[in-house]
Amino acid sequence: MAFTQMLAARSGQITPEIRAVAAAEKIDADALRQLVADGKAVIPANINHRNLVPCGIGRALRTKVNANIGSSALSSCPRHEHEKLDIALKYGADTVMDLSTGGDLNLIRRALIARSPAPLGTVPIYEMVARAGGSGISRELMLEVMNSQAEQGVDYMTIHAGLLKKHVPLALKRKLGIVSRGGALLAAWMTETGHENPFYEFFDEILQLCLKYDVTLSLGDGLRPGCLADASDPAQFAELDTLGELVRRCRAAGVQAMVEGPGHVPLDQIEMNMLREREVCDDAPFYILGPVVIDCAPGYDHLTAAMGGMMGAYWGAAMLCYVTPKEHLGLPEADDVARGLTAFKIAAHAADIGLHRPGARDRDDAISDARAVFDWEKQFQLALEPERARAYRKQALAASSKPDDHGSEYCTMCGPEFCSVRLSAKLKKAL
Amino acid sequence: MAFTQMLAARSGQITPEIRAVAAAEKIDADALRQLVADGKAVIPANINHRNLVPCGIGRALRTKVNANIGSSALSSCPRHEHEKLDIALKYGADTVMDLSTGGDLNLIRRALIARSPAPLGTVPIYEMVARAGGSGISRELMLEVMNSQAEQGVDYMTIHAGLLKKHVPLALKRKLGIVSRGGALLAAWMTETGHENPFYEFFDEILQLCLKYDVTLSLGDGLRPGCLADASDPAQFAELDTLGELVRRCRAAGVQAMVEGPGHVPLDQIEMNMLREREVCDDAPFYILGPVVIDCAPGYDHLTAAMGGMMGAYWGAAMLCYVTPKEHLGLPEADDVARGLTAFKIAAHAADIGLHRPGARDRDDAISDARAVFDWEKQFQLALEPERARAYRKQALAASSKPDDHGSEYCTMCGPEFCSVRLSAKLKKAL
Repeated sequence: MAFTQMLAARSGQITPEIRAVAAAEKIDADALRQLVADGKAVIPANINHRNLVPCGIGRALRTKVNANIGSSALSSCPRHEHEKLDIALKYGADTVMDLSTGGDLNLIRRALIARSPAPLGTVPIYEMVARAGGSGISRELMLEVMNSQAEQGVDYMTIHAGLLKKHVPLALKRKLGIVSRGGALLAAWMTETGHENPFYEFFDEILQLCLKYDVTLSLGDGLRPGCLADASDPAQFAELDTLGELVRRCRAAGVQAMVEGPGHVPLDQIEMNMLREREVCDDAPFYILGPVVIDCAPGYDHLTAAMGGMMGAYWGAAMLCYVTPKEHLGLPEADDVARGLTAFKIAAHAADIGLHRPGARDRDDAISDARAVFDWEKQFQLALEPERARAYRKQALAASSKPDDHGSEYCTMCGPEFCSVRLSAKLKKAL
Repeated sequence: MAFTQMLAARSGQITPEIRAVAAAEKIDADALRQLVADGKAVIPANINHRNLVPCGIGRALRTKVNANIGSSALSSCPRHEHEKLDIALKYGADTVMDLSTGGDLNLIRRALIARSPAPLGTVPIYEMVARAGGSGISRELMLEVMNSQAEQGVDYMTIHAGLLKKHVPLALKRKLGIVSRGGALLAAWMTETGHENPFYEFFDEILQLCLKYDVTLSLGDGLRPGCLADASDPAQFAELDTLGELVRRCRAAGVQAMVEGPGHVPLDQIEMNMLREREVCDDAPFYILGPVVIDCAPGYDHLTAAMGGMMGAYWGAAMLCYVTPKEHLGLPEADDVARGLTAFKIAAHAADIGLHRPGARDRDDAISDARAVFDWEKQFQLALEPERARAYRKQALAASSKPDDHGSEYCTMCGPEFCSVRLSAKLKKAL
C-alpha cells in the first residue's frame, strides 16, 4: 500500500500537505502539485509524523534552512537535544536533522519527532555504526535501521548512495580526503571489505521502505569537498553523476528525493555548481551545506557558510544546511544553534528577495515605513530578532549623554542635529 | 606646488607609495603606476600624514575595508575614539574614517591621525555643521574647514558634491528620503536658501586644495537609498551621473578620486549597480557602504551588509565600508567595531579568492593542510581570529566527557569513531 506525496500528486490529488504548503508559499496549489509530481519540489512528510506542519522544498519555493542538532559520543544528554530543538524552532529552522551518534539514539530520536512540528531528518548510517561499529555495516543492518526509523516517523533520510567503490581513490587525492562522516565510514568499509556501497547496491529495497512511509530520500554528498582547494574536483562530480542516476530511479518509483551539495566552494564556482546539479539531477531540490567561501575563519564559519549559502540559494539551491560558529572546532551548544540559524535565515531571506519570491520583501518594506516615522516599537516587532534590536537601542541610549530621551525622533548614531531621517521627514512635510 | 600620486604617476614616477603598495599587493609596480595615473587606483596619502603606511584602493587590488569611528553629540569621549581606532586596526581595517560630530573635533582628529598608520578619511560637512549649525553652510566655511583638515593630514575627504538642487525633489519621493547625513544637511540647506550645493559650485577651489596636500576626494553618495524599496531609483542615478562628471574633473586636475555607492540594494540589483558605476565613472574605485541586502534584521546589519559587500566586491567594488551591529540603532562601541570588521574582512577575503587575486588563497590552503594533519596550533595561528578559535575548541573539549584529551586527533563534533578526517588520513596511508 504505497502512498507518497509524489504518487498522490501524479494521480492529480492536491493533498492536504500540498494545499498547506501552497498557502504558506502564496503560490497556486495545482502548480505546486505539478512540481511535486515531477520531483522538482518535495514535501518530506512521513505518514507517522503526527504533529507535522508540512514544509515544501524546491527552487520555486521560499529558501529553507535546516538545523543539525544531535549528540556525539562525547556529549549525549537528551535534554540538551530538546533544548537545541526548541532553540532551532524559535530561530526559524524549517527542518531539523538529528545527527546523534552517542547515547540512546532511539530515545533521543523518538522524543525529537514527538516534539518537532518541523520535518525531521536523520543519517541512518550513524545508528548503524553506533550499534555495530565501522566494520559492522551490512545490508541487513541497513534495512533494519532504516525501517525502524521510518516507522518512528523520520521524514527524510540522508543516505550516501552515490559514493561508489570506484570513487574512493579519486577522493583520496585531495588535500582533505573525505570529510562527510557517512562518506568516510562507507569508504573505509568498502576499502576494507572490497564490497560495493550497500546503499547503492540495495537501493531498490530502500525505495520500497520509503514508499511505505513516504520517507523522502536526501541523496548525500559523501564526496563533498572539505576545503576550497578540493572543490569541483573529479571525485565530487563523479558522485554527482551517480546521484543524478538515483534521482531518476526515485522518480520512477514514486519516491521523493532531494540532492545534497557542497561544502567548501570558492565564490566563483558556486553558480557553476548550482547549474550543474540542476542539469545532472534534472532540477531535483538541491540541499547545500553552506558552502563555506573561505577556509581561514574557524569560529566564524556560520558567517562564511551563510555568505556562500546566500549565493547558492540565489543561483538555485532550495535548502541551506546551517553551519554553526563551532564548525571545525567542536559540537555546537544551544547558543551556537541560534547564531547559526540567524546568519542563515538572513542569507535565505536575502536570496528570496533577490529572486522576487511572492511577498518576500513585505516585512522589509514595513520596517522601512516604520523607520521613516520613528516608530521604534514597530521596528522591533518586525525585526528578525526583536530582543536584540530592543537591547541594542537601550544600550546605545544608556551610553548617551541624554539617556532619558527614549521616545525621541533620532538615534544615538547621529543625534538630533545630524539625523538624516529627521531632516528628510521635515523636507517632505515642507513640500 | 602641486604634488599628487596621480601627477607623479603620470610623469612616469614610481613613487615610494606606489612601490610599497605594489609589493603588498604582489603586482607589478609599473602596472600599478599606470592605474594610479589613469585614476583606476588611488593611494590616499596626504603629504602631512607622517606615519602613514600607504594603502592602494582599486579594482585590480585586494578588496579594502574601511571602519567608521567617531563621536556624536551624545557620546564624545576622545579616549573612546582611540580605543575604537586600536580595535579597528587590530581587526584589520585598511582605512579609518573619523565621522565625529560632537566634542572637540580638532583634538579628536589630530590624535587619530597621529595614531593611525592607516589612511584617515573625514566628512568635512560634519565639522562645518558642528561649528555653524545646519544653516551656517557657506563657501568660506567649507574651504576653511577643508583646508585646515588637509593641513592636519587627512588622507581622503568625503564630499557630497554630486547632490544638486534639482535632485532633491526626486529623493523626497522615496520611502526613506535622504539617509546620508551629509546629503540630508545639504538638501535642507539648499531648500532653505535656494542656493546650489557649494561643494559642486566651488569644486575647482576644492581641487586646488586637494592638489596642495594630495587629498583624495571620495565623491559621496548623498542620495544613496536607505532601504531596498528606494534602491536604483532616478535620484540615485541622477547623482551618479554628476559624480561621473566630477571624476573627470578630478582626473583633468590630477586629483585622486573615488566614488561612494549604496547603501541598501536587493541582491539582484548589486551587479547592475557595480557595472553602472564602472561605466558612468570610468572605473574610478568604487567605495560602497554594505550594501545591506535585507532591511528587517536590525542588530545584525554587520551581516546583512557584509553579505551584500562580498558580492559588491566580487562584481567590482574596490573598498567596502563596514557596518556594525548597531547600525540603525545607535552609535557603535568598541566591540561593535570588532564585530563589524570581522564580518567585512571575511566578505572581502571571499571576494578576493573568488577573483583569484594574487596569493589570496594561500592562508586558506595552509589552514586546510593543518586541518588534514590535526595540527591544531597551526590552525589557530592561521585563523582570522586565533583567540576565538582557540576558545571555542577549549569550550567544546570542556563540555565533552573526555575533557583531558587535548592533543587528540579529532574534535568533539564527531568524536574519534565518526571523525572523517581521521578516517581519510588512515585510508590515505593504506593507499
